Amino acid sequence: VTAPRRVPLDFPPRPHEATIGRGLLGTIGESAASALPDGAARGVCAVVTDDHVAAAGHAAAVAASLRAAGFDPVVETLPAGEAAKSLDVAGRLWTSFAAARLDRGSIVVAVGGGAVIDVAGFAASAWMRGVPWIAVPTTLLAMADASVGGKTAVNLHAGKNLVGSIHMPSAVVMDLTTLATLPPRELRSGLGEILKCAVLAERGRIAALRSGAAALLASSGPAGDESLADTVEFAVRVKADHVRDDATETRGVRALLNLGHTTAHALEAEAGYGTMLHGEAVAIGLVVAARISVRRGLCEPSLEPDLVAAAEAFGLPTLLPSSIDPSRIVERARIDKKHTASRRRMVLPARDRGAVLSDVPDDELRAAL
Amino acid sequence: VTAPRRVPLDFPPRPHEATIGRGLLGTIGESAASALPDGAARGVCAVVTDDHVAAAGHAAAVAASLRAAGFDPVVETLPAGEAAKSLDVAGRLWTSFAAARLDRGSIVVAVGGGAVIDVAGFAASAWMRGVPWIAVPTTLLAMADASVGGKTAVNLHAGKNLVGSIHMPSAVVMDLTTLATLPPRELRSGLGEILKCAVLAERGRIAALRSGAAALLASSGPAGDESLADTVEFAVRVKADHVRDDATETRGVRALLNLGHTTAHALEAEAGYGTMLHGEAVAIGLVVAARISVRRGLCEPSLEPDLVAAAEAFGLPTLLPSSIDPSRIVERARIDKKHTASRRRMVLPARDRGAVLSDVPDDELRAAL
Repeated sequence: VTAPRRVPLDFPPRPHEATIGRGLLGTIGESAASALPDGAARGVCAVVTDDHVAAAGHAAAVAASLRAAGFDPVVETLPAGEAAKSLDVAGRLWTSFAAARLDRGSIVVAVGGGAVIDVAGFAASAWMRGVPWIAVPTTLLAMADASVGGKTAVNLHAGKNLVGSIHMPSAVVMDLTTLATLPPRELRSGLGEILKCAVLAERGRIAALRSGAAALLASSGPAGDESLADTVEFAVRVKADHVRDDATETRGVRALLNLGHTTAHALEAEAGYGTMLHGEAVAIGLVVAARISVRRGLCEPSLEPDLVAAAEAFGLPTLLPSSIDPSRIVERARIDKKHTASRRRMVLPARDRGAVLSDVPDDELRAAL
Repeated sequence: VTAPRRVPLDFPPRPHEATIGRGLLGTIGESAASALPDGAARGVCAVVTDDHVAAAGHAAAVAASLRAAGFDPVVETLPAGEAAKSLDVAGRLWTSFAAARLDRGSIVVAVGGGAVIDVAGFAASAWMRGVPWIAVPTTLLAMADASVGGKTAVNLHAGKNLVGSIHMPSAVVMDLTTLATLPPRELRSGLGEILKCAVLAERGRIAALRSGAAALLASSGPAGDESLADTVEFAVRVKADHVRDDATETRGVRALLNLGHTTAHALEAEAGYGTMLHGEAVAIGLVVAARISVRRGLCEPSLEPDLVAAAEAFGLPTLLPSSIDPSRIVERARIDKKHTASRRRMVLPARDRGAVLSDVPDDELRAAL
């Protein structure tokens, strides 16, 4: 058994760490005990999950670990998918927290993908003005993105992630064996976000990911090699580097993590949420951003074909689906909540590594799509 | 015209100040401009108020000041009273923020009593993960309590203030002229909280408040003397002293502000919210806490009669209403959310100044009631 990897997530006001390994669900009880203030009793706590993750047995494994450590967990199972990220669901969680008598020292453990992490984290942030929580991502996408950096959110009809908080978890526990129960398409989707990390921080990794794609996709589950752990650790470190010192997103560093996302958010909304997976949309968005950057002479010309080759090796799309009208994407990207009405700021890859924020007019985006 | 008083509210992570004076509603536009990050545009913003405060013209005065400073305010008017502190109302605020296109740099201005301040502050704290807000309390109670310290909240059916955040405002503006439109009973209620501040910080002020009660109650409005400003400044400074260095309520200092509140919360709930005003319940709670403390020999015996005399001068009750069964209060105080099931921690006045947290068994509380 390889020892778990530990990545410091040293974000104010609550530095914590991500643990990456196999068979870690059984350690959550210890993590929860460590998250308590000194001398606090191990009382009731909540495990929030969704019905897919519950069916795979992961929430039960976490609850068993909590019981073994002296906690008294209640398990709240949400419907799988983005629909769980609503104010109604947050309200139902709070009502069940009240029924279970969770108090100011109680812990919330979120076990699932990005939607579960986001809504459970939000519920934890506002329950009695904030209780400790632990993120246990069970999708590659949530390991690479939602579980790192403390952002929580619910959606409104008017838009995604409009309501939320920044509430750092006390620990992030990534058990790679949970990825074995993930549908292969969702595993591939997660690689879209990881490709983004490679563009931002280590261009050479794009080719390495491409040539290792088959091994990587086969390495989830209890007996995989180290390539999956390597890759997840890489993504977590890149995200951590961008979040560190800009946890509240005031300095623009964290905004670079939106590389590929202006197009991706528009694509997801236009296709209808759930039709196109987030990482699939990000793969297309990365190619579009690279194309704009190459045409401007901002980055090396090889970036675009390198990205296309890697995405294809992962089985991710690189072109706008023929069913989608590029004009609609241009339009939707214009009203993205991250932009004021008069300009569209996009993240564009810089030469050799990193990225920059730049205004992109309609025509330039349309041409790249 | 006397210059406004400024009290530093130097709480992490956002030090700000309270301004206390007359005719300050016209300065809110400048306060809002100061709350913006450097170089940010003065765009849409929200004024949240209730129908009583709107009818008195205060929200319109704030909106006019914001327009004069180059902002584009939308005014959201909530139903007056505790009913506005619900998740549904917060959801309606977020929907209207979306419709008005409030973005990450937009400001929320809460104009009203504690309920408006609490729900608008919560809405601001979670809108796009937190936007700046300004508290403009228009009741004596909200000036002395809800507007200082950054606590926001909504109620659930299961209990008061179960969901919320700690989100420091950028400024707190207390315009004493707004108190002229307050029903006299609500003005008296505010004096209950101020009496609490005197018990905590300056026992000599209890007699001074009693002898000055008539002048104080007459000094609201545009032409009052300085006694009201003195009194509000005193209460704000006492609250600030307790919140400072314990903004997140981890060290027990802030908990001392709950003096009188274990009994008060139980009384309000038992009487039905709105039947007994908060400051009325606090006055009774202070006398009960002082009685327990005197019987234990923890504080000077004169405290109880001094408190009774001052409360009577303010027209506040000091005895449990005959309609209320003391056993019900003992019962309700047992399940207050600030206490674990097995013990009831109450704040008890210490000798000469200050207070201590102490376990109080059922029989001792029943005897004091």
